[in-house]
Amino acid sequence: METTRDKLIRATFDEVYSHGYQGASLTDILAKACVHKGSMYHYFANKKEMALAAIEETILQKNAEKYRYIETYTDGFLEEFYTRLRDTSVRDFKRGCPIANIVQEMSNIDEDFNTLMKAIYEDFRTNVKAILDKAIEAKEMQPCNTRKLALFITSTVEGAILAAKASGNEQDYVDVIEELIEHIEGKR
Amino acid sequence: METTRDKLIRATFDEVYSHGYQGASLTDILAKACVHKGSMYHYFANKKEMALAAIEETILQKNAEKYRYIETYTDGFLEEFYTRLRDTSVRDFKRGCPIANIVQEMSNIDEDFNTLMKAIYEDFRTNVKAILDKAIEAKEMQPCNTRKLALFITSTVEGAILAAKASGNEQDYVDVIEELIEHIEGKR
Repeated sequence: METTRDKLIRATFDEVYSHGYQGASLTDILAKACVHKGSMYHYFANKKEMALAAIEETILQKNAEKYRYIETYTDGFLEEFYTRLRDTSVRDFKRGCPIANIVQEMSNIDEDFNTLMKAIYEDFRTNVKAILDKAIEAKEMQPCNTRKLALFITSTVEGAILAAKASGNEQDYVDVIEELIEHIEGKR
Repeated sequence: METTRDKLIRATFDEVYSHGYQGASLTDILAKACVHKGSMYHYFANKKEMALAAIEETILQKNAEKYRYIETYTDGFLEEFYTRLRDTSVRDFKRGCPIANIVQEMSNIDEDFNTLMKAIYEDFRTNVKAILDKAIEAKEMQPCNTRKLALFITSTVEGAILAAKASGNEQDYVDVIEELIEHIEGKR
């Protein structure tokens, strides 16, 4: 069963994802969660504390689930990675990438958000590096600097989501991903 | 000499670039520009109209200057393009890319910003496509779908700036750009 805290986390993440942190309305969050302000204070001191918790828990948990497959696979790491990159159904191009949105909006203006976003971006990069390392181990690609290649991949994926958000055209994401896969394939 | 309107445009762009549109303070803009609110209304109806004008004029003008070189060059298009991509001195990694910032913050929540950012992003892509077309004409690279490659390049550059903003490490931008140049070089 969803607890009061869970409801607040879910509503906060959704509101911040849609409107940004500065544009997020505490009143709307509480209405969406069906929680009174008094109950909220039982869990969080203010909007900022609640937003930081919502971003951290939601994104890190989602990332952990997304990349768990590499623990159980023995080969086909790159193919599975490509399948996931190509899967547009898990993405919301209208709202863009929740990580990039918060980095853009808040990294420069608040140290707590800056620290959190740095950790989340690093987590993303580490997960992609782990896939590449497994792919090399399984002889699916030549040894290379996987930390640098992971940075290139995460950057390009973020840029692809941004392009689709800017143009309103999902195909832009698809086209960038295909070119990215072609680039990775060059390392076979 | 800088007119009152110029001062407002410059101060608005700087404020929006630093704090986002929603976080931008009209009071701070007027103080920075040394302009009274009454004078502002002579040029702009409100903060939104002024912000849209500041973004459009500043970015489109900057882009036009940045890519004007291709009109005068007869060869070395790619080399010059790489030099400019590698030039970190023109970038502010703390604040990130002003285009991406506004796309992330506003595309989803306001139709006027959405339309403007779509036009600016398209302008960026068109400029890069023009360089690639010139490079092909000058036999610096094989013919290819330059519109798609331009999309890949603009997306990766945006992602590279975002990565450096997220990590606070300029080297991340440099590393992504080198991998991107390697990718373009593969089309020689």
